[in-house]
This record gives sequence, structure tokens and C-alpha cells, in this order.
Amino acid sequence: MAASTAFAPNTPAHTVDAFHRGRFWLVQPRQGHRAGMDAMMLAAAVPSTFSGRLADFGAGAGAAALAVLSRCPEARAVLVERSAEMAAFAAATLAHPGNAHLGDRASVLTADVTLTGRARAETGLADNSFNFVIMNPPFNATEDRATPDALRREAHVTEDGLFERWIRSAAAVVKPRGGLAVIARPEQLVAVLDAVEGRFGDAEMLCVHPRPDAAAIRIVVRAVLGARGKLSIRPPLTLHGPSGNEPTERTEMINNGLASLFGD
Amino acid sequence: MAASTAFAPNTPAHTVDAFHRGRFWLVQPRQGHRAGMDAMMLAAAVPSTFSGRLADFGAGAGAAALAVLSRCPEARAVLVERSAEMAAFAAATLAHPGNAHLGDRASVLTADVTLTGRARAETGLADNSFNFVIMNPPFNATEDRATPDALRREAHVTEDGLFERWIRSAAAVVKPRGGLAVIARPEQLVAVLDAVEGRFGDAEMLCVHPRPDAAAIRIVVRAVLGARGKLSIRPPLTLHGPSGNEPTERTEMINNGLASLFGD
Repeated sequence: MAASTAFAPNTPAHTVDAFHRGRFWLVQPRQGHRAGMDAMMLAAAVPSTFSGRLADFGAGAGAAALAVLSRCPEARAVLVERSAEMAAFAAATLAHPGNAHLGDRASVLTADVTLTGRARAETGLADNSFNFVIMNPPFNATEDRATPDALRREAHVTEDGLFERWIRSAAAVVKPRGGLAVIARPEQLVAVLDAVEGRFGDAEMLCVHPRPDAAAIRIVVRAVLGARGKLSIRPPLTLHGPSGNEPTERTEMINNGLASLFGD
Repeated sequence: MAASTAFAPNTPAHTVDAFHRGRFWLVQPRQGHRAGMDAMMLAAAVPSTFSGRLADFGAGAGAAALAVLSRCPEARAVLVERSAEMAAFAAATLAHPGNAHLGDRASVLTADVTLTGRARAETGLADNSFNFVIMNPPFNATEDRATPDALRREAHVTEDGLFERWIRSAAAVVKPRGGLAVIARPEQLVAVLDAVEGRFGDAEMLCVHPRPDAAAIRIVVRAVLGARGKLSIRPPLTLHGPSGNEPTERTEMINNGLASLFGD
């Protein structure tokens, strides 16, 4: 994910960064949320054998969706992004010459994934029209709010609502037996699982630990629409070894699009 | 946990088993649920520095409570068991000569932990009277029921109700800032966390994997009454190495009362 000038110069406002060892490129703003390991882990939750239509909810500049396209040659993707500014970066990413081999399998849709019913369909997210939805909800936003004790319950409700709304829309647009993958923080586990339950089944959860002896910093939950199997907890992903900053081999593989997160 | 005749002969109806390398003994029925690793992991969730009154909800023959007493010299325990037959085994365990050094810190209470209000207090579980509650709810029972698709939702509700009732009682009998530890199956995670939330805080969860590459078979959740901190996910416990049946060093330590599960 090193910044590079192989295809286009960086500007004060944006950078062009290599992902998957240069197999695709991301045009993204220099300031603000920048794509990295979260997007790579989320993309890696999609099975390598996946084929069909995938929606990336909250696509940002397109890192997760392009990582899926890069690893899954039969996948097509719609990058759904509410922010017009970020949607423009996603479009720039798709138009980038270094992504010519992927761009014809992707499109950008500027839309709010929390719309419901007819409004959601009219914005371009038709019911029952995707085979997979991946999402990296803006979970850092809730963290930025002041949350003294008196406001904490409210913040919690807001956060619950975030996952409930995003996952409700995912359940609507995914076909039966279609997939969902969500990346979130450990403290959001209940909100995620509550929203998944009753809609999706066969849920699998994976915890991401920065080091073998450290608490998890992310969870990834994957599930199947309309399936009935119970939650299982997969072996965790550990990003680094016990000491030093070297990524583990598995992290390196996932980060470079050479392995899937759930081994399928 | 090898059966032994060091202190009392085994009979066709019961066995006397050594735990913590012979530092305490369990008198338990030969048939039915037999204590083992679950009880040792649950007990290990209590900090080694713990002192005060602990309630073991669903104590069975007393394995988890005695494991706490064996590791925590300042702890006292009430073994709460609904089944008169199992309570008799718990009493036999406390009376066993090999437990003379622990027995005076423990008592057996035959009571249903799902009672509420005055009925719960009158059965001997007074509000605000314990410093810690550990529980190993009879989660295997729900598994034994026939759960074809039509009944699955009902079974799920039943299961939710189990954890809700047990954890509600724990919240009532524990003092402010007192502790709770629960062991359950991964598929019961949401039921456990939903019941914990709003009552306990600073929740910590730990997944137990039989091997590094296998899905979790148990979860242990620990929390503090009235605390407000968010859920954290600790590094998992892996019972065995990648191959063979040898327990890992950490498993061995926990199984023998030489280490706590959460490192405190």
C-alpha cells in the first residue's frame, strides 16, 4: 500500500496507492479516512470462488471492492458511497489506467445505503439483486462523539441503529443464500449480531488481534441470507508476531490478496 | 482429573476424581454430566487475588467452586444447585477428607437460581450479598431437544431465556462492582451478551479453541456489575497444539489451578 507515482502523480489533495503488490491502485484523498488493512480484511471475507454481483456499502475510494475483483475473477462490483466527494475518488480509482483489467467489472453508485423501501430501490439498490454485500460502516464516527456517562446510552443506541440500518438494507438487496460480510470493532459485536440474527444465518465470526497477547481490535462477521445454522467463531487472525512490527505470513497473504480470511 | 481411590473408593454409582493435581477431590455421579475442563476454565476466570463471597450457580458436584477455593485462599463459596441429587454430591465433595483444607470455606445451597424477587431471597440468595458469581448454565440441555426448523426459533427463545434468567439473578445477588463469569457455547454468545448488557460492564470475552485451526467450542464472558466499559475480546485459549492430544502449557496451567484465564 505504498504511495506510488507509477501511473499518476500524487497531488497535495490525493495519493495513488498500490494494493495487492501493485495489482490494483487506489486514488484517495490525502486527508481523512484512508483505506488500509480494514478494507483488505473485509475483502478477504469473500470466498475466492465467488462469482456474481457484489455491493460494497460505504465503498469510500473503492479499496475493498477492488480487492475482491482482484482476487475473484468472476466477480462484479457496485461501489455504493453516499459522499459525492468519496464517490468521485471511487470513480477516479476505476478510471485509473492501472485498474484497466478490473474497471470494466465495477461501477460507482452514489447512494445512501440507509434508505428503505421504494426510496432505496429508486436510488439504484433494487431488492434481491446482489449475491454478496460487504460493508465497512463508518464506525469510527460514533467514537468521535463526546460520550460522558449521561450520553453513553444514546451513543450506544445510535451505534446499534447504524448496524441495524446497514444490515437491514443488505438483507433487502441480497438474494436468498447471498452473503454478507461486515467489519467492525469488538464493542460493536452485539449490535452487529443482533442485526444479523433473524435475517442471516450460518454466521461466522473472526477476531483480529494485533499481537498474540493483545485484545482484538476488529471483528469480521460473515453470514448467509436465509440460512439457519448457528454462529461459529473461527480461529483469530493475528496481525503481527509477539514482538516487532513484521506482519505474520497469514496477514501478508490476506493483505496482498493471496488468501481468503475464512479459508474458502 | 484421573479417578482415584486415594481417599474413598469408587462405587458403581459414583467416582472420586482428583483435580488440580490432587489438591482437591470431586465426588460425582458416574453417569450423566461429569465435571472437567469447562469447570476449570470457568473457575480460572476469577482473578487469583479474589477475596470475598462467591456463588457458583449450577454448581453440580462443586468442581468450579472448589477450583476457585483451591487457587484463591481468601475466597469463600456457596455452591448453588437446584437438583437435590447433585446437591448431595456437592455436600459429599465438601465432606471429603481430601478437601478438609477447603470445606470450611464452602457451603451447599439447594436452590433454583431462576427464582426472582422475594422468592429468590427467601431461598437463600439475598440481593447484594456476593462479590462474584460464576455460572455454567445447563446449556447442553437445550441441545438435546429436537429442533427441526419449525421449533428452532422456540428453542432459541428458550435458550435466550435461560441466560437471561440466570444472569438477571446474578445481577441481583452481586454487590456493585462485583464480578460475573459465564461459560457457554459460541452459538449462545448473543444470548449471553444481551443479558449482560445494561447490567454489567467492562465485559471481557475469551474464545476457547480446541486447536489453532479449529472453530471455538466455548466462550467465557466476564463482566463487572455497574461498570460502563465496552466489550473487549481477549486472546483466545487454545487447548491443544496443531497436532496430537497434548494440552498446551497454558491449558495445563489453567486445568491445574496454576494460572487464571484472564491473566489476573
